[in-house]
Amino acid sequence: MKNIKLILEYDGTNYHGWQSQPGTGRPTIQETLELALNAVAKENCKTASSGRTDAGVHALGHVANFETSSSIPAEAWGPVLNHVLPGDIRIVASEEVPSHFHARYSATGKSYEYVILNRCAPSALHRNHAWHVDRNLNLRSMRRAAGVLIGKHDFSAFRSSKCGARTPVRTLTALTIKERGEFIKILLEADAFLMHMARNIVGTLVDVGLGRYSREDVNQMLLSCDRSRAGRTAPAHGLYLLRVLYP
Amino acid sequence: MKNIKLILEYDGTNYHGWQSQPGTGRPTIQETLELALNAVAKENCKTASSGRTDAGVHALGHVANFETSSSIPAEAWGPVLNHVLPGDIRIVASEEVPSHFHARYSATGKSYEYVILNRCAPSALHRNHAWHVDRNLNLRSMRRAAGVLIGKHDFSAFRSSKCGARTPVRTLTALTIKERGEFIKILLEADAFLMHMARNIVGTLVDVGLGRYSREDVNQMLLSCDRSRAGRTAPAHGLYLLRVLYP
Repeated sequence: MKNIKLILEYDGTNYHGWQSQPGTGRPTIQETLELALNAVAKENCKTASSGRTDAGVHALGHVANFETSSSIPAEAWGPVLNHVLPGDIRIVASEEVPSHFHARYSATGKSYEYVILNRCAPSALHRNHAWHVDRNLNLRSMRRAAGVLIGKHDFSAFRSSKCGARTPVRTLTALTIKERGEFIKILLEADAFLMHMARNIVGTLVDVGLGRYSREDVNQMLLSCDRSRAGRTAPAHGLYLLRVLYP
Repeated sequence: MKNIKLILEYDGTNYHGWQSQPGTGRPTIQETLELALNAVAKENCKTASSGRTDAGVHALGHVANFETSSSIPAEAWGPVLNHVLPGDIRIVASEEVPSHFHARYSATGKSYEYVILNRCAPSALHRNHAWHVDRNLNLRSMRRAAGVLIGKHDFSAFRSSKCGARTPVRTLTALTIKERGEFIKILLEADAFLMHMARNIVGTLVDVGLGRYSREDVNQMLLSCDRSRAGRTAPAHGLYLLRVLYP
């Protein structure tokens, strides 16, 4: 058996996130990928994933792996799968990896980008791919507040009440805010993310940018470890899984 | 009667271009806009447009105008129409203009941007919004060839055989090529464009970037005034109408 690693780009608009939801009739990325894999490999392939994503979240570098006895060369899985996958899911790279590689358990870090369209007028072209914030954001105060969150912390205040992770401690290694014309791009890097952590951090930073919270408020939220204290959850459709890091 | 000017952004993916095609059952931007206008204004509004766009072409600044006896304030048309329009068409600005203003006949210039994704791997996120060219483009030779086309010329070699414009002479005031990461963005500015002119120029420049034509070949194409001599038509989904200029 070969262990094949795939890197996927997808437009999450028409999917209910990564993970299969058997019996619900909701299309997911994993289910769509496994249907394509089974059609191509003529065997029942199960994929491991670098993590789940929420409905509507996009990815430029989602990682999955699967074991197969197929004779398809490792580097040919991209073109072969893209031939049967819908256009909103593309395999951008594939390679054979050691048998012990697991897309989730082998991961040592992950990065996300969150895209905000910060202008008055609404947008047709970015309606599913950026959060439209129509009031002017104060980037300076957002950057100051971001500094509070960087480092190793208990991020309980920024995780979903449904999060099942054993520990709420994560190390946020980067949280940078760039302005690109009408767009604001927030890069988040951590060893791993809790459920909704990226979206809750962005939602809170936007509330800071709108003057609702100060840097010190964010500090108190973090120390409180209380989800009800932190800001709102930014919508899923502005979030992009950029990269998953491996040793 | 008031004359109202609208600026529209739209995602052309799901439309058969701007112009209404009664009886074909094909949705167009104009038809969708007029349905919304009639619902809101409670009268039969007909729109004039800065021009047609091909099926799949997008716009950031398409201009339309219409006459109305409605009491809706000029600046309120955006929010009011956006309330009934589908999300892939947004009014980004509206204002009252003099009665002689006509979106097409008053226009003195127009600009387009063409977006190319130049990388090996296909893209899920940009599948409907950029032309994927998987071989490396030589930007230097593209820029050199672009220089040939700038200025006032007979662009017969770059117009569709179906183009009905009285004269093929146009003044191309800008044709610049920028590299932005994996993207190549081509800006085209002219007093007006012939049918398919923007897409034919881009298709020809891409053929130059792939080494199929030289700068001198492009010069000969232009002088030939013969459509069969020029390069291919770039796909519609990479093209964006940026702005329409008025005196």
